[in-house]
Amino acid sequence: MNGVTYPLEELRSIVAKVLMAHNTSEANARVVARALVAAEADGLGGHGLSRLPSYCGQAGSGKVNGHAVPRVFEAAPAALRVDARHGFGFPALALAIEKLTAVVPNMGIAAAAVMNSHHCGAAGYHVEELARRGFLGILFANTPKAMAPWGGYAGVFGTNPIAFAAPRRESDPLVIDLSLSKVARGKIMAAGQKGETIPKGWALDKKGRETSDPAAALEGTMVPMGDAKGAALALMVEIMAAALTAANFGYEASSFFTADGPPPAVGQLLIAFDPRPFSGGAFEDRLEALLAAILTQEGCRLPGDRRLRLRRMAEAEGVTISQSQEEQMLKLANAT
Amino acid sequence: MNGVTYPLEELRSIVAKVLMAHNTSEANARVVARALVAAEADGLGGHGLSRLPSYCGQAGSGKVNGHAVPRVFEAAPAALRVDARHGFGFPALALAIEKLTAVVPNMGIAAAAVMNSHHCGAAGYHVEELARRGFLGILFANTPKAMAPWGGYAGVFGTNPIAFAAPRRESDPLVIDLSLSKVARGKIMAAGQKGETIPKGWALDKKGRETSDPAAALEGTMVPMGDAKGAALALMVEIMAAALTAANFGYEASSFFTADGPPPAVGQLLIAFDPRPFSGGAFEDRLEALLAAILTQEGCRLPGDRRLRLRRMAEAEGVTISQSQEEQMLKLANAT
Repeated sequence: MNGVTYPLEELRSIVAKVLMAHNTSEANARVVARALVAAEADGLGGHGLSRLPSYCGQAGSGKVNGHAVPRVFEAAPAALRVDARHGFGFPALALAIEKLTAVVPNMGIAAAAVMNSHHCGAAGYHVEELARRGFLGILFANTPKAMAPWGGYAGVFGTNPIAFAAPRRESDPLVIDLSLSKVARGKIMAAGQKGETIPKGWALDKKGRETSDPAAALEGTMVPMGDAKGAALALMVEIMAAALTAANFGYEASSFFTADGPPPAVGQLLIAFDPRPFSGGAFEDRLEALLAAILTQEGCRLPGDRRLRLRRMAEAEGVTISQSQEEQMLKLANAT
Repeated sequence: MNGVTYPLEELRSIVAKVLMAHNTSEANARVVARALVAAEADGLGGHGLSRLPSYCGQAGSGKVNGHAVPRVFEAAPAALRVDARHGFGFPALALAIEKLTAVVPNMGIAAAAVMNSHHCGAAGYHVEELARRGFLGILFANTPKAMAPWGGYAGVFGTNPIAFAAPRRESDPLVIDLSLSKVARGKIMAAGQKGETIPKGWALDKKGRETSDPAAALEGTMVPMGDAKGAALALMVEIMAAALTAANFGYEASSFFTADGPPPAVGQLLIAFDPRPFSGGAFEDRLEALLAAILTQEGCRLPGDRRLRLRRMAEAEGVTISQSQEEQMLKLANAT
């Protein structure tokens, strides 16, 4: 790839400095930088450095409070409420993880409802962190409106990711991370930029009709993965991530990209399970048996395989970013 | 419909007597009968009276222990283990619900891992019961092998339902209940019986190739809803319902239908959330706002709409079963 290669540590440091130049505290900048660089290293560019300009713009305008210090309340012995206070999502979720880590071994299960939050980035990032601490994790997150209820035409739900991670005894955690739209919106934007059509079944126009025109699709809504079943799952995630956390729904939330308007104030629900009490200590062996059964079949691999391969490469050789990305980053660093 | 109409109470009583004539205790027979008749009333015939012959066969052979008394252990303050002891799934799940109802208001969240279990019936039935008690519920259940890992050819996972319910202030709970196969296996059997082909994308043959031949499909595997994403969700459900509960995986479990072989010994995980601590009391209002936003769109309805309409009719007018179903039921009642 024609670009510039940075060791991860150096890239994290640069990204943090860029954020600090845009109205963000050092503590928050470090947490956000760690997550963005981790996504970049995992090959998840859509949640990586590509977000930096919009994050800076929002922190600059105050739509995101870059100095927010999230607060946690123990609402019940196993139920936490985390107020992200209109700051970045990452520090709030990091606080949730820290607190869950203390509570779950005593309770067996616990969950944190995060409100007044923002983009959670790569959803798998947070549950992987729980799994590194020995817990299974499930994250439900809502996002600004992108999908219509089944049979409808106007966006109500976001693409609403579900992320899941399970600890493994001698390997990296197993991580599953999927948004509930059939394809990523970025694919439709890319088709539009190239003047191509999109397959029917990806998106609906603003009247709820199937369309193969990227422009009409971008004015309309994304089709859920699994059609009606996926729309039902999107409703479930919207309820868990936003109704249960008293956050904004997808149709109420402002954009994660533009610097204007009120804060998105979306929500996330993070659930952690201690495998020991539930399984009587059998969990690790049982999980390995299941994964081995999958891998005996030719053509099968585990979720996250590619992600971990890219991560190992990035750890050894650094991450390569394009020259235009580097220019943009350096421009942002010198913007103030 | 050409058939015989029974008031629900009478039908429950007959079904319970049928089960008691097949090596099942009165207490278990009543719990199973209530669930089967509820499914029938809701228009979910596949989890209703159609199961009675196979349930009787399995209780008769001892594959299901009709006299099992499930046991619950408090493995941690918010983590329960329920041993179904190779009995029917319903009494074990009823015990889980009873115990969760006591624990959740104190903890905020709690979960019950059910092992040595059997068919959970209509998965929404159990979470609806939690929602009637004021809690949000999520159920993950695994079932005998029916789907291959993505890219593979041999069944590893079941059709692995996810069920979700949320309490509403003045309406029946909102219930979402979906299995993770694109279509129900029954649709393929029906096509085979009529000599019809099936659309590509529903099923794979035993070598993992797309097929439109129902016979080849029934020897092969079901395609997950949402393709690769659905396969990832099926893995998540398998881990939550079976690895975490130390139950049999789909590829290890015996059939829910035949009377021979060892008990299926599958698992279920039931999670209950108290909305009050997580939402600070805002949950009910927020949920109504979301559902109202959905219903403003022409063509949209809420999940479970049809189910509740049929239930109201059945409550008022009774349930109509076919003459052949009635004959079968009466034959089973007189079998011993």
